[in-house]
Amino acid sequence: MIQRTKLLGSIAATGKRSLSASSRWAEIRDIAELPHRTSPRYQDSKNGDFLTLQWPSRPQNILLTKKNKTPAITESLIEFAKHIHSEYEPINMIVEHHVAKEVHESLPFPVYTTAAPKDKSMPILHDKVDLVSTLGGDGTILHASALFATTKHVPPIISFSMGTLGFLGQWKFEEYKRAFREAYVSGAEVSHGRPALGDVAAPESAETETSDSQSWSSIRGKLMGSNHRARVLLRNRLKVGIFDANGQRLTDDAGTPSQEHGDVYAMNEVIMHRGANPHLTIIKVLINGHFLTEAVADGMIISTPTGSTAYSLSSGGSIVHPLVSSLLLTPICPRSLSFRPLVLPANAQITLRLSEMNRGKEVEVSVDGVRRNKGLGLGMEVRVSGESVRDRGGVWNGGVPSIVRGAAGSDVGGDDHWVGGLNGLLKYNYPFGEGA
Amino acid sequence: MIQRTKLLGSIAATGKRSLSASSRWAEIRDIAELPHRTSPRYQDSKNGDFLTLQWPSRPQNILLTKKNKTPAITESLIEFAKHIHSEYEPINMIVEHHVAKEVHESLPFPVYTTAAPKDKSMPILHDKVDLVSTLGGDGTILHASALFATTKHVPPIISFSMGTLGFLGQWKFEEYKRAFREAYVSGAEVSHGRPALGDVAAPESAETETSDSQSWSSIRGKLMGSNHRARVLLRNRLKVGIFDANGQRLTDDAGTPSQEHGDVYAMNEVIMHRGANPHLTIIKVLINGHFLTEAVADGMIISTPTGSTAYSLSSGGSIVHPLVSSLLLTPICPRSLSFRPLVLPANAQITLRLSEMNRGKEVEVSVDGVRRNKGLGLGMEVRVSGESVRDRGGVWNGGVPSIVRGAAGSDVGGDDHWVGGLNGLLKYNYPFGEGA
Amino acid sequence: MIQRTKLLGSIAATGKRSLSASSRWAEIRDIAELPHRTSPRYQDSKNGDFLTLQWPSRPQNILLTKKNKTPAITESLIEFAKHIHSEYEPINMIVEHHVAKEVHESLPFPVYTTAAPKDKSMPILHDKVDLVSTLGGDGTILHASALFATTKHVPPIISFSMGTLGFLGQWKFEEYKRAFREAYVSGAEVSHGRPALGDVAAPESAETETSDSQSWSSIRGKLMGSNHRARVLLRNRLKVGIFDANGQRLTDDAGTPSQEHGDVYAMNEVIMHRGANPHLTIIKVLINGHFLTEAVADGMIISTPTGSTAYSLSSGGSIVHPLVSSLLLTPICPRSLSFRPLVLPANAQITLRLSEMNRGKEVEVSVDGVRRNKGLGLGMEVRVSGESVRDRGGVWNGGVPSIVRGAAGSDVGGDDHWVGGLNGLLKYNYPFGEGA
Amino acid sequence: MIQRTKLLGSIAATGKRSLSASSRWAEIRDIAELPHRTSPRYQDSKNGDFLTLQWPSRPQNILLTKKNKTPAITESLIEFAKHIHSEYEPINMIVEHHVAKEVHESLPFPVYTTAAPKDKSMPILHDKVDLVSTLGGDGTILHASALFATTKHVPPIISFSMGTLGFLGQWKFEEYKRAFREAYVSGAEVSHGRPALGDVAAPESAETETSDSQSWSSIRGKLMGSNHRARVLLRNRLKVGIFDANGQRLTDDAGTPSQEHGDVYAMNEVIMHRGANPHLTIIKVLINGHFLTEAVADGMIISTPTGSTAYSLSSGGSIVHPLVSSLLLTPICPRSLSFRPLVLPANAQITLRLSEMNRGKEVEVSVDGVRRNKGLGLGMEVRVSGESVRDRGGVWNGGVPSIVRGAAGSDVGGDDHWVGGLNGLLKYNYPFGEGA
Ligand SMILES: NC(=O)C1=CN([C@@H]2O[C@H](COP(=O)(O)OP(=O)(O)OC[C@H]3O[C@@H](n4cnc5c(N)ncnc54)[C@H](O)[C@@H]3O)[C@@H](O)[C@H]2O)C=CC1
Ligand SMILES: NC(=O)C1=CN([C@@H]2O[C@H](COP(=O)(O)OP(=O)(O)OC[C@H]3O[C@@H](n4cnc5c(N)ncnc54)[C@H](O)[C@@H]3O)[C@@H](O)[C@H]2O)C=CC1
Ligand SMILES: NC(=O)C1=CN([C@@H]2O[C@H](COP(=O)(O)OP(=O)(O)OC[C@H]3O[C@@H](n4cnc5c(N)ncnc54)[C@H](O)[C@@H]3O)[C@@H](O)[C@H]2O)C=CC1
Ligand SMILES: NC(=O)C1=CN([C@@H]2O[C@H](COP(=O)(O)OP(=O)(O)OC[C@H]3O[C@@H](n4cnc5c(N)ncnc54)[C@H](O)[C@@H]3O)[C@@H](O)[C@H]2O)C=CC1
Repeated sequence: MIQRTKLLGSIAATGKRSLSASSRWAEIRDIAELPHRTSPRYQDSKNGDFLTLQWPSRPQNILLTKKNKTPAITESLIEFAKHIHSEYEPINMIVEHHVAKEVHESLPFPVYTTAAPKDKSMPILHDKVDLVSTLGGDGTILHASALFATTKHVPPIISFSMGTLGFLGQWKFEEYKRAFREAYVSGAEVSHGRPALGDVAAPESAETETSDSQSWSSIRGKLMGSNHRARVLLRNRLKVGIFDANGQRLTDDAGTPSQEHGDVYAMNEVIMHRGANPHLTIIKVLINGHFLTEAVADGMIISTPTGSTAYSLSSGGSIVHPLVSSLLLTPICPRSLSFRPLVLPANAQITLRLSEMNRGKEVEVSVDGVRRNKGLGLGMEVRVSGESVRDRGGVWNGGVPSIVRGAAGSDVGGDDHWVGGLNGLLKYNYPFGEGA
Repeated sequence: MIQRTKLLGSIAATGKRSLSASSRWAEIRDIAELPHRTSPRYQDSKNGDFLTLQWPSRPQNILLTKKNKTPAITESLIEFAKHIHSEYEPINMIVEHHVAKEVHESLPFPVYTTAAPKDKSMPILHDKVDLVSTLGGDGTILHASALFATTKHVPPIISFSMGTLGFLGQWKFEEYKRAFREAYVSGAEVSHGRPALGDVAAPESAETETSDSQSWSSIRGKLMGSNHRARVLLRNRLKVGIFDANGQRLTDDAGTPSQEHGDVYAMNEVIMHRGANPHLTIIKVLINGHFLTEAVADGMIISTPTGSTAYSLSSGGSIVHPLVSSLLLTPICPRSLSFRPLVLPANAQITLRLSEMNRGKEVEVSVDGVRRNKGLGLGMEVRVSGESVRDRGGVWNGGVPSIVRGAAGSDVGGDDHWVGGLNGLLKYNYPFGEGA
Repeated sequence: MIQRTKLLGSIAATGKRSLSASSRWAEIRDIAELPHRTSPRYQDSKNGDFLTLQWPSRPQNILLTKKNKTPAITESLIEFAKHIHSEYEPINMIVEHHVAKEVHESLPFPVYTTAAPKDKSMPILHDKVDLVSTLGGDGTILHASALFATTKHVPPIISFSMGTLGFLGQWKFEEYKRAFREAYVSGAEVSHGRPALGDVAAPESAETETSDSQSWSSIRGKLMGSNHRARVLLRNRLKVGIFDANGQRLTDDAGTPSQEHGDVYAMNEVIMHRGANPHLTIIKVLINGHFLTEAVADGMIISTPTGSTAYSLSSGGSIVHPLVSSLLLTPICPRSLSFRPLVLPANAQITLRLSEMNRGKEVEVSVDGVRRNKGLGLGMEVRVSGESVRDRGGVWNGGVPSIVRGAAGSDVGGDDHWVGGLNGLLKYNYPFGEGA
Repeated sequence: MIQRTKLLGSIAATGKRSLSASSRWAEIRDIAELPHRTSPRYQDSKNGDFLTLQWPSRPQNILLTKKNKTPAITESLIEFAKHIHSEYEPINMIVEHHVAKEVHESLPFPVYTTAAPKDKSMPILHDKVDLVSTLGGDGTILHASALFATTKHVPPIISFSMGTLGFLGQWKFEEYKRAFREAYVSGAEVSHGRPALGDVAAPESAETETSDSQSWSSIRGKLMGSNHRARVLLRNRLKVGIFDANGQRLTDDAGTPSQEHGDVYAMNEVIMHRGANPHLTIIKVLINGHFLTEAVADGMIISTPTGSTAYSLSSGGSIVHPLVSSLLLTPICPRSLSFRPLVLPANAQITLRLSEMNRGKEVEVSVDGVRRNKGLGLGMEVRVSGESVRDRGGVWNGGVPSIVRGAAGSDVGGDDHWVGGLNGLLKYNYPFGEGA
């Protein structure tokens, strides 16, 4: 449904040759060969704001994504992959198909990727990936998140900024060794030559058998102990569905529903916009099925708190801390003096419906900066609500688990990075005067 | 500490005579004679957004407050009091001291009020009042809330708008009979001639003995059944403390700490402002003890979501739904192009400190539209955080329990009133064109 | 160069037949047959804010334009045309080509239109039209103005709003008889059976010979006298040129420069916008050749004061009175906390240059809501400055002369209509509260 | 009427002694002894945006003002005064009374100051001062401008910023020698041992006799020639009058009208504000006598373009170039979603009237950051219009003539300093990202 996922490419057509190569060096293998993924648990930390990451056993399948068309970043990815391979063997490196072609000849071990066409490659990623690492800017993180846009179970993501500075990224590439170790061993304790699971009662599923490859003991260097778990910010997403005037769900570009339930998740926002049409768009906005207002505007944004520093900010929205469970409704250039951004409860159901008054005009729909191939016509609508990230049993579940700076036990305040980003990157309340 | 509470007046000096009067008609009695208050319980409703009100036994002590200097409203208060008295006897009517003097001669039954000076009148209200009813606009609701500014346990409030239209009020005075009944009998069921408590396990305290006066059976007319409980919006407040440059808590105007812990609660907001000084104020803002920014501005607002439609709105803040657990940090006329309102988690600790650079200037501090008598000087600070409204056991506790429209069981959407207020009162996104 | 002008249509291909028809009834004639236009003069009025309209001799060629696809408006145009024809004969009615086909069968007299293809039809309109009348909303006025986008000498425009309420229109269709008369006879005085020119010394050109058809005396009814001249608001326009990375002027879609100097005039604004591209655009902004800033945004608007209530308003710009000689520079959704709309002197030269950092992306350019067929690529730029409306000799010249309400001599304040539009249409500072 | 002017002090009481002192060293003399002022002419420059300064004869009476309570600036003033004295003798140095007491002992020549009480000191300054120089920030410039708040004829001002960076100041103190010379000799040409007046026909008044002391020839160093005149930005001011409910002009604090006509001029803005009252203020706004709107707000600002970067900016107003002849109407924290700043023609007459609905509340009025001693009560009003800076004969007259950087003949763009201030001081559109 979304252009970006095209990037996963048509390995079916072109990839055969490399997948059948026999040499381990420079080999591209099919991700289907990998063992099933290991899912971590997330636990409340003492101050209650952030979660801690707890692996039930060693993660083995690492997805590396990167910004495109930037040779320096490709170099860094190769350096990073080699480091992980040498330090954390046995481990499996997954990359996207087009990346596999770019880097496999530079790596002295095989990389895994998807042989399936787009529609089928997303599910297999969801089944296999334990941990994601991104090298690039916010766009690269959004792209990684989009690879998991149809599952509730996004693996933890650790993001390295690379020149292109980003607000969502937390780590500088220079610190990749320590940062990756922190993420990788989080929650592990070695005792009696067997993996210890810290204060977690049991691995997530009883079937999990701790094979050798899953034993923490093989890892060189000191484990960090249960007090030094990686800290996780669970970024809430939006659940987005698109429907025609008869209430029928619209499928993705390939004509098939993009997943079982058909919704996709957005990390930043979904927007409806006039696109190239130089005239105003008229959009009906409903909250929980009740009429709220009719926007006459360039468009409308429904954003997560994470997205509050992206497009919504440019459109005049407030900055909302990612831990405030909420949705933002921000108009884009409304033809009204009295529109004002709203912050709604995360469980509000919002509908944006293309009013009958648009007379044949189409509007564009974009999710996280990726435009839907076909625009929406009269009466069609986008339905949105926040993803709930805790299930009825109180277990954390859903969202984009982003590994952030600051060990859980430390007394370094949880908001540091966010506040730092406001001041350092967004130049929040930047003082007047001659000093830079 | 706050001017408004002066309204409670010096009954000690002037009230003696009336309190000793013996006739029931037109009598003013001391609130101290009343039985201890009955506290309701709040339970999650099915859709999880609003709470339902559950009285363990009949409420008996009703506080009526009203807008001042508006004879029509005084008339309505008398009409309302007579109605309650005739329908819900035995019941006790409490009014503020100055109101007692205004109305007692028009009422054929005694009214209760406080004989104590201000500092001592607030605690006794906290001990005695079961239910509050306000007649007026938002200012009257803010005033009622201010009477409970030093307790965590605000009684439920049912508010009637009276000409002066308000955003916080929910009911029109015309519907006072039905609305009051709904609030009064909420959760009661008559079975076997004894009060039944719906689906609540037990009254809050084992000591509560259901005397005759507490039996629902004496109420004329049909009870509404446990399915028709009054719906409650628990409005989060702010906890506000003021400290000097040495970290010593500043007491109220009387020189004594205004309550055990010394904090006061705000329903709308606390502001720091340059006041009559025509120059900019410099305020350091800290979040969780870390430096966020230095505001050079007219002032700063820290607001609840409830207050997001008050001063914060005028200063450019977003509108935040009262169910979004959060705090707003909104600058007033900042001398900066890059300040933007923030929405922070409700449990964030915010400090506004008067920077050393203000050179002898004082700033004003106001809570919910009431100015603190003394301004703050250099290095003094206001410390704020959101009130938590659920205790560790998951029991709802704290906030201002506001009785809102719509029975819990009905499928009328919970947001109706709020959305209605946006459109009807705030003229949200009011359409261009000639139609009014 | 602009789509809208396509409306003028390919009369060359299809129109021949009707133009050669011989019956006066329902006839379509070639505009080329009409006499050359008569240009009015504009004079300062006493309070200096508005101008007065002064015809040197009777206007004869009236262009009627209307909103498309609205049968009721077509009916009104026919009624209006018949009225003018019967009251002001001899007079010539000009309509656009597609309108001619729609209405000529309903009119008992010929209509004139252009037989030439688009590029040549604009110059001939500029040569022939004495007075323009529009029936529709603001879009219709913008369209009429676009017909004169390549000449400095726009005829006076009198605009009737038709259902679709507009901010730019001044008159309701119901008052068309009086309003048109006011515009038509403005400045005329009958004395001694010959046209008198009020207090104007001489007709614009010595060649003007006052033939019978130009004599005011044939007009039925009272002339209004020199004290009741029509009041004119001279709306300043923008002069817009588009250039490639080498500084070569880009021609319009037909490949030829659209006029002698190649600039087009805009009444509202020119915008650069990301269009359907879901990513940010980077635009360098220069003032008088000096770097001002680099906008990272959806786009940029350069607007006239007239356009300050259109797109610029939606993007957060201030409302600027049309008599403030200035240009507005308003960003659309800038990725910056510190962008703020600027109001610059009308004679400032502004350049919007597509930064090299856009990597192959194109941006859209629109003038007054009409999108240029081709987007702009890297390094291309839009150069804009305000039109000067007074020549060196102090003669008013240029702008869109809009006939506004209120006779010049009356003491009804000049700002009435504008203030009325703010309050009545834009709901400026609309009061809170339940009243509609 | 304004506190700030109190600074001029009561020299009458305390100054006698020094004025009668006989020694030239450290002497304080009465300004009344000085010759009458010399007024320059302003002429259009080629590009039409800025004016050039033309002295008819040598200026002799220089007023030096400075920021208070900043010893380093006092030192600089002494250095500056000594330099002027040694280079430009015969010349007379004027300072404010409190400054005279501070500095006269450090100066080897007399200083002049006013012996009169406040009300009479302003007129004598208006009669005597040829040129003003300020050392400090924007506040110092506003103060200097306030000394001429009751005359149309403000002398040219040359401003040096001193540490405290300002937006209005143009020069750094380091460059004082060159900058002062440029201002001092502007327009002078030496020929035949007699003053030449460049291309100006004649000195302003025929009576002016060119005594020796007025001859340029005595100045050391090269004159700059008529091509290198100092460039002047004529900053438009507001004319502000205050009236009671009966339309009677309110006098200043001393009970006498502050000048012949009673208006005062403002360089930045006039504001009405709730001051220390924590409640909303209701202000009726009229334009040219017609009702515009009723503001329910903290207050209202009427600002010049110069003031558009001061308080109006903080309140959300657009930035208006000082050459755009206009007034800004900017609300302060309006309780409305649909208020928007307006930019009106400079000749608009604006009235701010305290609505009857304010019930006994007073509002504060401030001009350029100086609060009026008494607030305004019900029905009182402030009447404002822009100052016209060109008289009927086209002669420049009025405004605050500010000497700006860039010689008139140079091709350095006129907007440089303003654009530089936006970027360098106001951090206009400051780019996101890690760079400072
Ligand atoms: N988000 C927005 O506000 C957008 C605004 N526009 C505006 O639309 C104009 C083109 O108008 P249409 O072809 O009718 O397009 P449209 O169908 O998109 O309608 C534009 C609206 O703006 C109003 N309008 C136009 N000029 C105005 C003015 N000077 N002052 C006040 N209201 C004005 C019209 O009455 C109409 O309601 C453009 O010049 C641009 O200013 C165009 C696209 C988006
Ligand atoms: N919230 C706000 O922004 C407030 C602003 N002010 C402004 O302060 C002015 C008085 O200045 P001070 O006595 O120094 O008071 P102040 O000590 O409050 O400082 C005002 C600040 O505004 C700057 N400023 C003054 N005029 C300016 C202009 N035209 N353009 C850009 N910056 C300018 C000054 O450099 C200083 O940083 C008033 O005219 C008013 O405009 C006054 C009160 C509040
Ligand atoms: N006018 C605007 O502000 C527009 C913003 N966007 C934003 O761009 C996003 C897509 O990003 P790209 O593909 O990189 O597009 P892009 O190349 O247009 O860059 C978007 C910019 O936004 C930043 N960004 C993205 N997400 C952010 C977040 N959550 N907080 C702070 N900054 C963030 C990126 O670092 C980048 O600088 C969309 O989700 C949308 O939010 C898209 C179009 C226009
Ligand atoms: N510029 C502004 O907007 C100012 C606003 N205020 C607000 O006034 C409040 C005090 O109220 P009053 O004593 O009646 O003062 P007031 O007489 O100044 O009226 C304040 C107005 O705000 C409305 N209001 C109060 N709380 C509201 C809420 N939560 N949502 C929507 N509207 C609300 C009231 O109905 C009234 O119209 C303060 O808490 C503060 O929020 C106070 C001063 C200035």
